[in-house]
Amino acid sequence: MKIGASYYPEVMHESQWAQDLKNGKDIGLSVLRCGEFAWSALFSPDGKPTMDWARRFLDTAQTNGYEVVWCTPSATPPPYLLDRWPDLHATTSEGLTMPVGIRRHYCPSHAGYLDLCAETAGTLARELGTHPAIRGWQVDNELAGDGFTCWCDRCGAAFQKWLDQRYGTLDKLNAAWQTGVWSQVYTRWEQIPVPRSFKPAHTPALKLAWRRFKSDCWLNFFRRQAEALRAGGAKCVTTNFYNMTWDLPFDRWKWRPHLDAIGISNYHEAPVESAFELGVLQGPQPGEKPLWVLEQKAGQQASQNLLPDDPARLERHIACCAQAGAEYGIYWHLRQHAAGCEMEHGAVLRHDGRPTRIARAIGTAIKGSAAKAAKFAPAERLLVFSFNQFWANETRPPMGAAYDYRVEIEKNWFAPAQQLFGNIRIGNFGDAASGRSLILAPFFQLNEPGAGKTFRAALEGGATLVTTVDFLRLDDENNVRRIAPLAGMGDWAKVPELELYQLKAGTTVQGEIAGQPVTGGTFWAIPEVSGTTPALCREIGSGHCEGCAGPMALEFKVGRGRVIVALTALDSAGVQGLLQNL
Amino acid sequence: MKIGASYYPEVMHESQWAQDLKNGKDIGLSVLRCGEFAWSALFSPDGKPTMDWARRFLDTAQTNGYEVVWCTPSATPPPYLLDRWPDLHATTSEGLTMPVGIRRHYCPSHAGYLDLCAETAGTLARELGTHPAIRGWQVDNELAGDGFTCWCDRCGAAFQKWLDQRYGTLDKLNAAWQTGVWSQVYTRWEQIPVPRSFKPAHTPALKLAWRRFKSDCWLNFFRRQAEALRAGGAKCVTTNFYNMTWDLPFDRWKWRPHLDAIGISNYHEAPVESAFELGVLQGPQPGEKPLWVLEQKAGQQASQNLLPDDPARLERHIACCAQAGAEYGIYWHLRQHAAGCEMEHGAVLRHDGRPTRIARAIGTAIKGSAAKAAKFAPAERLLVFSFNQFWANETRPPMGAAYDYRVEIEKNWFAPAQQLFGNIRIGNFGDAASGRSLILAPFFQLNEPGAGKTFRAALEGGATLVTTVDFLRLDDENNVRRIAPLAGMGDWAKVPELELYQLKAGTTVQGEIAGQPVTGGTFWAIPEVSGTTPALCREIGSGHCEGCAGPMALEFKVGRGRVIVALTALDSAGVQGLLQNL
Amino acid sequence: MKIGASYYPEVMHESQWAQDLKNGKDIGLSVLRCGEFAWSALFSPDGKPTMDWARRFLDTAQTNGYEVVWCTPSATPPPYLLDRWPDLHATTSEGLTMPVGIRRHYCPSHAGYLDLCAETAGTLARELGTHPAIRGWQVDNELAGDGFTCWCDRCGAAFQKWLDQRYGTLDKLNAAWQTGVWSQVYTRWEQIPVPRSFKPAHTPALKLAWRRFKSDCWLNFFRRQAEALRAGGAKCVTTNFYNMTWDLPFDRWKWRPHLDAIGISNYHEAPVESAFELGVLQGPQPGEKPLWVLEQKAGQQASQNLLPDDPARLERHIACCAQAGAEYGIYWHLRQHAAGCEMEHGAVLRHDGRPTRIARAIGTAIKGSAAKAAKFAPAERLLVFSFNQFWANETRPPMGAAYDYRVEIEKNWFAPAQQLFGNIRIGNFGDAASGRSLILAPFFQLNEPGAGKTFRAALEGGATLVTTVDFLRLDDENNVRRIAPLAGMGDWAKVPELELYQLKAGTTVQGEIAGQPVTGGTFWAIPEVSGTTPALCREIGSGHCEGCAGPMALEFKVGRGRVIVALTALDSAGVQGLLQNL
Repeated sequence: MKIGASYYPEVMHESQWAQDLKNGKDIGLSVLRCGEFAWSALFSPDGKPTMDWARRFLDTAQTNGYEVVWCTPSATPPPYLLDRWPDLHATTSEGLTMPVGIRRHYCPSHAGYLDLCAETAGTLARELGTHPAIRGWQVDNELAGDGFTCWCDRCGAAFQKWLDQRYGTLDKLNAAWQTGVWSQVYTRWEQIPVPRSFKPAHTPALKLAWRRFKSDCWLNFFRRQAEALRAGGAKCVTTNFYNMTWDLPFDRWKWRPHLDAIGISNYHEAPVESAFELGVLQGPQPGEKPLWVLEQKAGQQASQNLLPDDPARLERHIACCAQAGAEYGIYWHLRQHAAGCEMEHGAVLRHDGRPTRIARAIGTAIKGSAAKAAKFAPAERLLVFSFNQFWANETRPPMGAAYDYRVEIEKNWFAPAQQLFGNIRIGNFGDAASGRSLILAPFFQLNEPGAGKTFRAALEGGATLVTTVDFLRLDDENNVRRIAPLAGMGDWAKVPELELYQLKAGTTVQGEIAGQPVTGGTFWAIPEVSGTTPALCREIGSGHCEGCAGPMALEFKVGRGRVIVALTALDSAGVQGLLQNL
Repeated sequence: MKIGASYYPEVMHESQWAQDLKNGKDIGLSVLRCGEFAWSALFSPDGKPTMDWARRFLDTAQTNGYEVVWCTPSATPPPYLLDRWPDLHATTSEGLTMPVGIRRHYCPSHAGYLDLCAETAGTLARELGTHPAIRGWQVDNELAGDGFTCWCDRCGAAFQKWLDQRYGTLDKLNAAWQTGVWSQVYTRWEQIPVPRSFKPAHTPALKLAWRRFKSDCWLNFFRRQAEALRAGGAKCVTTNFYNMTWDLPFDRWKWRPHLDAIGISNYHEAPVESAFELGVLQGPQPGEKPLWVLEQKAGQQASQNLLPDDPARLERHIACCAQAGAEYGIYWHLRQHAAGCEMEHGAVLRHDGRPTRIARAIGTAIKGSAAKAAKFAPAERLLVFSFNQFWANETRPPMGAAYDYRVEIEKNWFAPAQQLFGNIRIGNFGDAASGRSLILAPFFQLNEPGAGKTFRAALEGGATLVTTVDFLRLDDENNVRRIAPLAGMGDWAKVPELELYQLKAGTTVQGEIAGQPVTGGTFWAIPEVSGTTPALCREIGSGHCEGCAGPMALEFKVGRGRVIVALTALDSAGVQGLLQNL
Repeated sequence: MKIGASYYPEVMHESQWAQDLKNGKDIGLSVLRCGEFAWSALFSPDGKPTMDWARRFLDTAQTNGYEVVWCTPSATPPPYLLDRWPDLHATTSEGLTMPVGIRRHYCPSHAGYLDLCAETAGTLARELGTHPAIRGWQVDNELAGDGFTCWCDRCGAAFQKWLDQRYGTLDKLNAAWQTGVWSQVYTRWEQIPVPRSFKPAHTPALKLAWRRFKSDCWLNFFRRQAEALRAGGAKCVTTNFYNMTWDLPFDRWKWRPHLDAIGISNYHEAPVESAFELGVLQGPQPGEKPLWVLEQKAGQQASQNLLPDDPARLERHIACCAQAGAEYGIYWHLRQHAAGCEMEHGAVLRHDGRPTRIARAIGTAIKGSAAKAAKFAPAERLLVFSFNQFWANETRPPMGAAYDYRVEIEKNWFAPAQQLFGNIRIGNFGDAASGRSLILAPFFQLNEPGAGKTFRAALEGGATLVTTVDFLRLDDENNVRRIAPLAGMGDWAKVPELELYQLKAGTTVQGEIAGQPVTGGTFWAIPEVSGTTPALCREIGSGHCEGCAGPMALEFKVGRGRVIVALTALDSAGVQGLLQNL
């Protein structure tokens, strides 16, 4: 793995470049990421490329032994562009117009801007792409980061068109969304609103659709530039996804085919968070595509202690990236900014450019761990993570105590699996179709098209599916299916008759699995007649709550395989118990 | 009392109706409330009634032995109506436009919508009103609930007109509101603003007037539909007031004459809150009008534990309704929604329709308590509760530590009265005029027209008035009268000379009444020369605060009656002390 | 010192004036402040003066031995003015339009309003200024108080013009602000935005410029009225600055030459806060201009306990004012309002006008302390306080743990200086030029024009400068200078080589100075090679943090003087240690 840093030659005196790059080289840096906010420097206001400085910088980089990832500058359209297109300003979820002077303040549905960004990307590829230091391309920067997507009426019109394509007719949309509730039946596409922030919330089906549309809308934004880059001769085009702790604006499984490398801004602190993030990036076939950590933390936001707050973090972080097979690990950033909103953000080098204890610590970490080899998880086990399900959870009222789908899976399913199996692959439900002996699909409520069929096929093939009792309880539109618990399995299995209860925050199921104490929450399903278990079913563990008693999980056969269903949202000890006793 | 549930046949498969109703019947339900959000199903976009399904449903209901309260659907104008009238959207107190896709998003001053709603109500009455299952009518649903009244400029214009009618001339309004403070003298009606949210707040007189106007504005909204319903042959027309814990948008005393039954959405948890709510609904003459609990809690918002969180709540709740003489107690709702913002809200039956422990517990509660008889409080005692005073407190800076007028009366006056006397009637000040031997009128600051005269008449007739030292200290416009404490009693009585102090939060008067420890707060009035009590006055209890000492209450004669004045905002022990030692 | 109170004759019955004034006189009041919200009463809607009542009131005041400060009423333009000029409404930092019905709801860049206010002020001076009771004039009331400055596009246009005057060309502005970061290079003045509230924040250079512009914009607003007052014959024109705990909208050093007296609304509770506020008001030459405390607290906001919450506060407050040489100490206010947003605010007299314990306590305090003499600090020591630096801190991301520049200086620098030296003068950096033997200039980061030269001159002259290691680390535009720590001192001194670390909240340097335990935070600079100290430098104290060790401060010679640099943000014990061991 190569370690590097972001650098902003366009705001540094040219005379400083060589020394800064040398200082980085001295501690072991060999990659740079540049240009993501440099529109003003790369083009004149009339659109002419002004890139001589960039070429000179690339020469300096090459001389110092650096590879470079160059970025398209669409995250920061200069003021003159918003002057030219007053309707380019993005709109917040509260309906406010985003001003110039910040970043990601453009509407991603603005046709003129998309054309210009594509043209800009093409010019960049042609002007700089032939330079031998260039190794790859990043489109924009943390697209839709900080939740800065646009909620304007133009996006609304694009949404209505997207809905038209998805549903074909309003009758189908009304039926799918069950708009009869609260009399929200639409009779013209134009009536369908942008679900901006409002209390009470908009209907969950509308909000899930908006999330899906927005992912597609941004994918289109990305693809316009990616295609122009490639047409200009660029190789290895990616973007840096925003960390999953912040937001999940995109269905990464759907984006994946369009990326040459998988890029990330990885600011995770906790090892398990970082491992899970990288696991999602690796996907079901680790190594299939290069994995680039395009940003990681060199120092704190607005503070950079004498020593990294956790002295071992740097090494651990690099080791984690290396183990995931990352090709690049790029710090943000090489030298602190002198101006702008991030001027006190930590970096490898301080404002004055001199290396300090931080730089020396980074150098030590690089030496200690950069050469570690990738260690991929075996293919036989898969943890299913669904961006659609994440959105479904986020856009619906909770069933029982609220939880964060990502956190719950990361902490209570991924972590014990990682502990037991070393590591586990992560994929979409479609990746469960074959070749897996163990499939974990907790909280897989949304009946995404083909999901049931896929899981069934895997089971018929002999796989073990571990899931939760809310399995397939929603249709694909975010509505509850009026069926008994687990009846989403249809005729695969004789499922037990269960009563499914929501548990409010603070109500827990106390129990044991294999003699170890475990806890459940959020929901609990118990056999209709308490105390008896359906034939064909094996009870796993036992628990009690509010005077009722029942098992913590059930196991039953499907085809040559078997299903293990957690009847409550188990803690990590509970999931560990299930996995240890398969 | 009959127990029932809300049901939404318009979003259920018709084939499910019979089973759902049978499941309800099996546990003892015999009333249904329907139709409050069903505009889309009841009318086609061109306004034609499409009610065959409703008639078929009413047949099913009747077959299963149910009575039905049907609702007008004005809470949810379908999207096409906001498409037709873009100016129908309501405006929030922050000035934002409420979107389609939620409920109560219409402006209640929109003439076209009011006409259409009246027409709709009349059609409903004619189309469904003759069905033998129909027992009564509810207009809209929780009118202005969640504070969702409208603050638009059209409402502002209606407000200006209402002010014109109230004051006649701007000179009178300016004098009444004392607009000289901060130079707010109006010279045209159009200058009077809608007091939308802003810091610092608008002047209290303006805000109280707005609250009064809004109550009248919504009463007009209600009456337009109620009259159309009655003209269409409907009997027993009501609406479901929103719970007093949430908001007090209406002067219920002023609404009362226009309601055939008094309806409520009663989601109170605490017995005393529920009893107070029902006491206000019963009013000064319990039994005068039917009392309908049109919504009560079948399950938690977004969670429904295995057992009701408080197993005794269901029985207690029913008993409380029964004791208040409620005719109906209707759960929200029979079966969980599959779609929309409330899709995970608890219900009698779960999504899949099967009865669970919850349903069984409700059945048990019904059996145990539904037949309990009404128990009305005797007429001799009255607790005065003023919606105008509530608004005055809400719209003014606090005098001393802030308190909630409703909570203070409920907790510290109603609760001890209930404990001592079994129960106590609640009414407006006008209801104190005659026939009462004991009148409690704490925190009655606002000199509402006729209030002084009424209390005096009661006193002359021999009644005992228990009040607080802030009695009549405000004029009817929400301004402080420049008079000595208690001088609002005018020439009725030789009132003692007092100094009235505001006490900030945390400053309390520690004292005793009849040997029992009691506490006061918010304000304390002490005789001008500390330690001496005016002749003619009896001191009650004693307290100290910040090195000063004085009585907790005073008693003095007025006519054949007497006044007992709490000199501080007593806790419940203090009020109990006063009432026990009358 | 004369003690007085604000009074509102325009909203009192004329018959009450004499008694109210007599009640005030009886406890020792002899000054009144009047008229700041009286536009409606002073002028008819067509602009004619209606001031007979005011003259009669001034007669009454004179008869009762009062001096009067009269105010211009521009804080409360009556509704008819906003009716006439709909564009007069101010805009909040969130972009909302401020309504009528509150105060300070006008735009300070509205040419028509500024003209009218000047005309109004001139008329007032001519109509009332000759009355013998008039002693001085206050313009408006707490200008821009509560952060109620205007963020409208007209202010934005004025800002762009102000920028044009400051920078001359866009190229210079772009270079000064380093707009290359995030591609914010402006190509037309009209592109420069008003930095309204938005996340992420606008660039610090823009925000500091806006703060500076706003101070000048309001100074212009003040001067227009002040000049008109003086042209009308008025003497002693001032305004009442808002307390520094609330906001620092103005560069008071820049305003000072335009004020005949220095006025303040001083609601501080803590003695040190009050002393610091008054120290800033006195400035580097106490006694140079009259100091008027135009508002101080007679009672609590919305509560007025039996006794002042801290019985000694009144006396202490008066003593503090007296020691600062204040000419007036004016309570807010004489008698509680009956209407408006402040109707329950405490006052000397209650609503009914009768004196209570509060009034008697104020009378006692006046007798006990009003005659105390002023006690000015000697000229030799100066504490530098910079409003520009305050804004720089407020508009930038923090370097290390966030702190409030005012609070930090007040608590950790002013307080120990006051304790050691009795008192200390406070001034702008320019006041350090000569005549000082000791200059404290902590956190003086901004390289304001002439700052370096001034400090150097003082040092060459033999002064001791005590500062912090962030000294001159910013340019005057709010950007970080790419120089080594302390290199802002240029060639004055051979400064030690230091590594400057940001410390996040919770990370502290534990150490000692002269054997006493002290603590540092926010940042720490340690010699590049830990453990050795540069020649020519004296180490002061020692500390440790995260396993590193170093001195707490350094001392080195500059010319005939010396610099003592705190290497971390010391607590008050640390600063005391430095000052005790000079």
